Parts: sequence; C-alpha cells; structure tokens
Amino acid sequence: MKKSECLYLQPEKRNGMIERENIKVIGFDADDTLWINEPYFQETEDNFCLLLKEYAATDEVSRVLFEMEMKNLELYGYGAKGFMLSMVEAAVKVSKGNVPASIIEKTIMLGKEMLERPIELLDGVNEVLTALKGKYKLIVATKGDLLDQERKLRKSGLLQYFHHIEVMSDKKEADYSKLLAHLDCAPNQFLMIGNSLKSDVLPVLELGGNAIHVPYHTTWAHEKVEEENLNILKIDKLVDVLKFV
Amino acid sequence: MKKSECLYLQPEKRNGMIERENIKVIGFDADDTLWINEPYFQETEDNFCLLLKEYAATDEVSRVLFEMEMKNLELYGYGAKGFMLSMVEAAVKVSKGNVPASIIEKTIMLGKEMLERPIELLDGVNEVLTALKGKYKLIVATKGDLLDQERKLRKSGLLQYFHHIEVMSDKKEADYSKLLAHLDCAPNQFLMIGNSLKSDVLPVLELGGNAIHVPYHTTWAHEKVEEENLNILKIDKLVDVLKFV
Repeated sequence: MKKSECLYLQPEKRNGMIERENIKVIGFDADDTLWINEPYFQETEDNFCLLLKEYAATDEVSRVLFEMEMKNLELYGYGAKGFMLSMVEAAVKVSKGNVPASIIEKTIMLGKEMLERPIELLDGVNEVLTALKGKYKLIVATKGDLLDQERKLRKSGLLQYFHHIEVMSDKKEADYSKLLAHLDCAPNQFLMIGNSLKSDVLPVLELGGNAIHVPYHTTWAHEKVEEENLNILKIDKLVDVLKFV
Repeated sequence: MKKSECLYLQPEKRNGMIERENIKVIGFDADDTLWINEPYFQETEDNFCLLLKEYAATDEVSRVLFEMEMKNLELYGYGAKGFMLSMVEAAVKVSKGNVPASIIEKTIMLGKEMLERPIELLDGVNEVLTALKGKYKLIVATKGDLLDQERKLRKSGLLQYFHHIEVMSDKKEADYSKLLAHLDCAPNQFLMIGNSLKSDVLPVLELGGNAIHVPYHTTWAHEKVEEENLNILKIDKLVDVLKFV
C-alpha cells in the first residue's frame, strides 16, 4: 500500500485495516461521492453574488448567505430548497431591504436551475458499484431533500445497484445507529464511503463501524472539520475502494 | 354498525369488511390524521393574502399561489419549504414584479412561523395508539419535508408508539408497494388509516390492502378527489378505528 493510496491507518481500536470478511453492507454517500454536487451550489452562489453586486461585494454576500444558512439549518435541514430560501432572505438582508422583486425572482430561478441540472457521475462510480454488487449489500445514505435526492438517484441510472436508499435528515452517530438497526447490521459489518469526514467517516467510526474517506476538491464550509491528527483510511480516487473490499 | 360509523362497505373484491385476523401492520397518515396541519397552511395563506392585498384580492392571490404550487410540485415535492418558495414566487407574480423586499421578508417569516408551530394532536389519537400498540406493528407513512415531519413527530410525543416512520416523496401505489416490500408485509396484512382518499385510501385498496378513511374538515385542493360511488370504509372519528381492528 503506497502512501498516496492510504494516508492514514485505521483507528487503533480496530486494529488497522478494514476486516474485509466482516463487511456485509457498504453505504455510499451520494453528493460529491457518487456525483458532482457542491460545485453546482458554489456556481449558484457565485451567480447569486453577481445578482447582488450593486449592494455588496462577493465576499460579503457569501458571508451573509452562509450566516443565513447556518441560522436556518435547524429549521430547514440540508438541501436545495433550504438553500433557496436562505438566498432569498440573504438578498433582503444584503440589500438592506432594497432588493427588487426581479432579483428575488432571478434568485428563485437560479435555485430551480440547480435542481434541474443533469447528474454528472464522478470517475469510477460504475466500475466500483459493478465490482461490489452481489458481493455486498449496497446502500445509499445521503442527507438533503427527500424528493431531490430520489430524483438525482433516478437520473443517475445507479438505482439498479442499490438494495436500499436512505435519505437522512442528518448523519450523526444516532442517525447511523438507527439506520444500522433498521438494516439489521452490526457496526463492524458496515463500511461507509464518502467525501465528508464529518458526516460519512467520523460518526461511523465512533459507532465501531468502518469508513473510507474519499475527499472531494470542494467541501461546503459547514462540512469542514480539522483533519490534523486523524487516523483515518483516506483514498484519492473512488476506484481505490476496490483495494480494501 | 350504524350508518354514521361506516358509510360505505369495502370493495367487493375483498368481501366487505376488514379481516381483522390478517392485519399485521397498521399505517397512519400524519398530517390531519394524527395532528392538525392543513388549517395551519390555510391560515398562513390567509395572512399571505393580507400581505398582498394592495396588489390583488384574496381569491386572486390564492388562485395564483395554488397555480404556482402545482407548477412547482414536481420540482419541490410536498411540504412547507416548497410552499414557502411558491409563496415568494406568487408574491412576485401577483404584484407584477412590484412587491417590495419587506413583504418578501414577511412572507418567509409566515412560513417559518408555520414550521415552528406546536403540534396539536387530533381527538382520540393517544387512545387509539395505546389500544393498538403491541397488537399490531404501527407505522407512520407521511408525505412532506423529511426534517419537518421528523420534527413534528418528535414534538408530538407519539414516537414511542411507532415501529417505523416512513417519510415518502409521494403516496401512490408504487410508493406503498415499495414500503410494504421493505416491511416484508403482504398487502392484505396492511391497513392504512388517513384523511386523504387520494393518498391514504385509494392506492392502498388498489394494491389489495385495507384502508380506513377518516375525513378531516379541511382538505388541500390538490388532495381532493370525487367521492361519489366510492365503496370505502369511512369513519367519522379516529377512535372509531377501534371498532374494526
């Protein structure tokens, strides 16, 4: 195993590597693990900043939008619709109540365009799923809007690979615990693969499960955690998963 | 059985009454079956119409809003966030692009207040769930925003009664079919109880399952279907369920 393939070892409590023979269920995150997502949000945000450029600089609009998203997170949860509502509220705030209806309308249109974008699969997705199907029970475990995530899965053409799709309101330890109970799967039989340390890796390891981190070049600020001193199995490309299972 | 308790018989294909001994899983709709919901949407819509009264009469605002909701339904799905986004878009349309940011802000606030309302259980809910718990596997099968429905269930204090909560992006025959497969439950072992003929009763009967209709005084226009000539088990009050199971 080269350093570039596996930058960190598994936490000590689980004796290093994933015990391949224990694994029964493999969970995949969806956004930015199976397909491109965060860059679309970023692009939408960039266009939103342009719409408001006469009221504030890009950085300031982005700052207010992120502040609004965090303020609304408990109430709206994750996903595109909450993001759209936060953009509308941010437009009012940034403009000090002066934003015209035409810009509100354009803001909504930006969100709708994002919702309607085609799905662009990430490299190696079909190869990995084809190789693992039949050997393991494959599931998707994703946060976001229920309908939106279901639609993206349908559009992705990947539904055929999965035994179960779980759209979760959050991905904390308790949420995974519920999911595993529901799947009748012990934590050490579960491997989660995803791009977010915070949502896909750390809570699963905490439960005593297995996880592989496949970082994506863009991460939403809310999902960022300090990586230092973490002792986690991290791969460069999704296809490297096949070296471990 | 008095006429007021059961206005219609079961479809002929299932020989009249519910076969109590077959039933293993009972599904409850949530909004307007377990707790008050539609009146809160109506109240929010009334206040929204007031906000826009200088641009159009109540009926016209309501008409444009419903048109917007229907146009957006496929993209947003069911639930409060989609409703909020449709209100914002309707405000722009009704005002012919003249609505000020302050009214957009107030519109968002109306939606947030609706999301934050306490849960008001309907009559007989605790009595019915207490009587049925242990005898059957009880589940909730509801449409709407995932996080919002989960929050309402938590706030309702009813979680203890349920084996499983299913938030569905839609409640058509195929959706129930998937749910039953997932629960490993044959259609004739399933009884669905809810206020919507269209979403809770007809698709379940079509599948060969059982259903009881508990109408609620207010029904969203989108959920309305012609009731004439339907041969369906309909009760006045939720507590009457206990006469059949």
